[in-house]
Amino acid sequence: MNKRKTPHYNQGTHSAIWRENLNATIFGAETRAGKSFDILLIFSISISVLSVMLSSVQELNLKYATLFNYLEWFFTGLFTLEYLARLIAVRKAMLYARSFFGLVDLLSILPSYIALLMPGLEYFLIVRILRLLRIFRIFKLVEYVDEAETLITALKNSYHKILVFLYTVLTIAIVFGSLLYVIEGSAAGFTSIPKSIYWAIVTLTTVGYGDIAPQTPLGQIISASIMIMGYGIIAVPTGIYSSELIKTHQATPISNHACPSCGELGHDSDASYCKYCGENISPD
Amino acid sequence: MNKRKTPHYNQGTHSAIWRENLNATIFGAETRAGKSFDILLIFSISISVLSVMLSSVQELNLKYATLFNYLEWFFTGLFTLEYLARLIAVRKAMLYARSFFGLVDLLSILPSYIALLMPGLEYFLIVRILRLLRIFRIFKLVEYVDEAETLITALKNSYHKILVFLYTVLTIAIVFGSLLYVIEGSAAGFTSIPKSIYWAIVTLTTVGYGDIAPQTPLGQIISASIMIMGYGIIAVPTGIYSSELIKTHQATPISNHACPSCGELGHDSDASYCKYCGENISPD
Amino acid sequence: MNKRKTPHYNQGTHSAIWRENLNATIFGAETRAGKSFDILLIFSISISVLSVMLSSVQELNLKYATLFNYLEWFFTGLFTLEYLARLIAVRKAMLYARSFFGLVDLLSILPSYIALLMPGLEYFLIVRILRLLRIFRIFKLVEYVDEAETLITALKNSYHKILVFLYTVLTIAIVFGSLLYVIEGSAAGFTSIPKSIYWAIVTLTTVGYGDIAPQTPLGQIISASIMIMGYGIIAVPTGIYSSELIKTHQATPISNHACPSCGELGHDSDASYCKYCGENISPD
Amino acid sequence: MNKRKTPHYNQGTHSAIWRENLNATIFGAETRAGKSFDILLIFSISISVLSVMLSSVQELNLKYATLFNYLEWFFTGLFTLEYLARLIAVRKAMLYARSFFGLVDLLSILPSYIALLMPGLEYFLIVRILRLLRIFRIFKLVEYVDEAETLITALKNSYHKILVFLYTVLTIAIVFGSLLYVIEGSAAGFTSIPKSIYWAIVTLTTVGYGDIAPQTPLGQIISASIMIMGYGIIAVPTGIYSSELIKTHQATPISNHACPSCGELGHDSDASYCKYCGENISPD
Repeated sequence: MNKRKTPHYNQGTHSAIWRENLNATIFGAETRAGKSFDILLIFSISISVLSVMLSSVQELNLKYATLFNYLEWFFTGLFTLEYLARLIAVRKAMLYARSFFGLVDLLSILPSYIALLMPGLEYFLIVRILRLLRIFRIFKLVEYVDEAETLITALKNSYHKILVFLYTVLTIAIVFGSLLYVIEGSAAGFTSIPKSIYWAIVTLTTVGYGDIAPQTPLGQIISASIMIMGYGIIAVPTGIYSSELIKTHQATPISNHACPSCGELGHDSDASYCKYCGENISPD
Repeated sequence: MNKRKTPHYNQGTHSAIWRENLNATIFGAETRAGKSFDILLIFSISISVLSVMLSSVQELNLKYATLFNYLEWFFTGLFTLEYLARLIAVRKAMLYARSFFGLVDLLSILPSYIALLMPGLEYFLIVRILRLLRIFRIFKLVEYVDEAETLITALKNSYHKILVFLYTVLTIAIVFGSLLYVIEGSAAGFTSIPKSIYWAIVTLTTVGYGDIAPQTPLGQIISASIMIMGYGIIAVPTGIYSSELIKTHQATPISNHACPSCGELGHDSDASYCKYCGENISPD
Repeated sequence: MNKRKTPHYNQGTHSAIWRENLNATIFGAETRAGKSFDILLIFSISISVLSVMLSSVQELNLKYATLFNYLEWFFTGLFTLEYLARLIAVRKAMLYARSFFGLVDLLSILPSYIALLMPGLEYFLIVRILRLLRIFRIFKLVEYVDEAETLITALKNSYHKILVFLYTVLTIAIVFGSLLYVIEGSAAGFTSIPKSIYWAIVTLTTVGYGDIAPQTPLGQIISASIMIMGYGIIAVPTGIYSSELIKTHQATPISNHACPSCGELGHDSDASYCKYCGENISPD
Repeated sequence: MNKRKTPHYNQGTHSAIWRENLNATIFGAETRAGKSFDILLIFSISISVLSVMLSSVQELNLKYATLFNYLEWFFTGLFTLEYLARLIAVRKAMLYARSFFGLVDLLSILPSYIALLMPGLEYFLIVRILRLLRIFRIFKLVEYVDEAETLITALKNSYHKILVFLYTVLTIAIVFGSLLYVIEGSAAGFTSIPKSIYWAIVTLTTVGYGDIAPQTPLGQIISASIMIMGYGIIAVPTGIYSSELIKTHQATPISNHACPSCGELGHDSDASYCKYCGENISPD
């Protein structure tokens, strides 16, 4: 149903049938070629990301440096071709190039060329790590999953409530973190207020590294109450999101047409008459 | 809709138009000036709180002591002016001064003056930390967020259930804490019952610092059951809160009267006309 | 509404009006005396439990040993009197004495008398710890909280589902624990299968002490999947319990009277006619 | 209602009444013999699994090696007999032998025979650990628990949504793991990207071992946001699953037809007569 739509920038151009086909293959998922292209791309991205990740393991890098290098150049070539194909397939190339996914596409092939142009720069970690941005490209391909939309809609609807919740969490962390900074002091690892707040967040979210832990009885009593608080207020975002998702499920959609007679809104989409003034509001 | 209401203590006073304007600016968020004032205040509070927090980091304090000092005096001055403006803007100044937010406003500017009047006192941590109370002042400004009210209403409605839940959690912690105190003893860190209860809370809430951990097989078996218990009973507050929020959502109900003309149901309770046939269905 | 009911074992006995009053005071919460008695008892139990807990802290015990001793004898005396009063207030004393709360009442005063009769025995930790059972007695007093009943009903209804869930959790822990025992071996702390299962439970429930942690890459990959699994399946008990609580909220109670004509069950409690055969089933 | 069905592979075979009885006993749970068999089997499997687990504890193995050996041979014999009985009881033995539970049954008795045929092989951990697969066999017996089906149905329905969620979690872990690899470096334990991603998963799922923990202020700020993120997005799977379970619960709906005689609504969809006035409301 909710398939990814092919951007028809080039409709009506007579000589551009090959371009339209290319477009459907690269951007669409309806055609057989489009589907194969998507699967191949997901596979390539996965291998490429895995290769970047593994090349950061020293033992592996010493052994397989050449392999990682070859793989990197292979994928850089592949993704460069794909990037060019995308630029050709759409009519307004600049529009694509400046879009979020266009930038991600460019940024994730750039590091290899930078290393070529400015030798030595490839030793900068940050340059090499840029290639991991490729992972985002899969989202472009899975965006047709209908389910994601429901999840994101519910998230957007509960956005304000979640912000209020996050601000409350932060305030609790600041207040209790400062409190334990006063009570525990440097000896137990609470060396500054920001560090104590860090500890409070570690505790409140039930992560609990244990690198900093209260030593005094009073500190432990207050910590225990932070934990129980954190254990309890997890219920708040869960409740917000659950009720939002359930609302989405149960929603009998409401029409966004105002009554032509009284101008009131909020009519159910199956309504034939305005529920306020009785005016006929059926579309035909 | 649910905007913060300006407290019109001074309505009807002829000469007090400037005061009414001041009031609307400081306490309200409807006017353009009121909105700007709110944003400016949130910004000032954030910077000020950040400055207090960072000044507790020794390295930063050594380097930027003068900057922190200047910032502190700048914000103390600013918040003092604001405090005075608030006292002037409301008619019953004492009522404001003794309210929760009035006290917070006062307490968060006091430390600097104390340090001025009684030199040396500013070295007391607790005096300096008082300034962090400013963080609470933002709540006064965000209280108009409609969403917060829904969250708090649901929390209030589930208050009794949550108390029962908390008492059960505490009992589990006391019983299992004492049990592990008997089983493990001082060697594994369970040096006293309160400390063992602290450990039980750390475990039950799935925080798990690891500073105290059972060593004996029996202790580990019992710990494992505490963990599974804690993992499971998180469902209780979540369930309570979710069902409460959902109840709140469903509160605008559907009328259970059928249309007398066409017999259809499912009309909103505020409907005056049948949405299917247009018949008048208002009760009178 | 759902007040604790006074067990009227002694109704109709002419001379027992004082006993009935005693009964109402001790077991009931309707009368003013009954309420005061409850509050006093909760207070006494709390202080007594706190005293037992604190006396296990060595520093405090060295300093305040005499105080703890006096407190203990005071509360033992008080709870003994209360126990005797309860035995007198009910007609069938043995029935009360053998009930759960009767046993708890007895067990929590016994340790002090044991120490008196057999000197030296009070040094056994387990004997002294028995007194903490008093904490359970508060449940008897809070049982009139209507809310607790809803929570317990929902828990009972989801009992079977939660068992299935727990067995699944245990199986995951056994399978993955054994797997990591094979992969990691003794070096990383996975010295035996039971200990590895203990680790798996610590990880799956997101407690994460960190006393045992995988060291090999393969072990860490599998651990990561256990964590994500544990993070995800917390949704299962939460979902079960939430939906159960919501069902309880939305339940239009169903009558447990069968239709006198067709014998069918499952009628709504507000039904006047059998929905299957049309027979009048209204109570009057 | 939803009892396990006996596979009647051998219906109609005259001489096979004993086989049908055997089938009902082994595969079914309706007959008294079938129930006893199930309980006996669960008991045997539990003891056997416990014995395998405990034999991996070195101290116990040194002491009770002979007992574990005897137990193992006893259960191997028992489960071999049961396996043969199952092969005989069904007509198409190969079909059973190649089914999932058939393979589990075989694999969990094989290790002992392997050790007999190829002495020395029983010292291979992986061979001995295979016997723990027996734990899965209990699932075959509990599959008649009606509740499990509801849980699994809801899980299947939310499968796509959970996949989207898991991919998002993984992406967050990869992005933030790489980020902390750059920021923290080897000193704090972030020795490679895969290890940093492992740390990110440990943190995001709120497990928090503490074996790797950020040391720099920037690293701790980013960690804190990962924790809050992880604390918040637990709401997503919980919300998905809750709303799915609630949908399943509400599936037996209420008719939306009003009674033609009294106009009342809220009748169950299986009602033939109006529950308020007794009028026939069956559709035909």
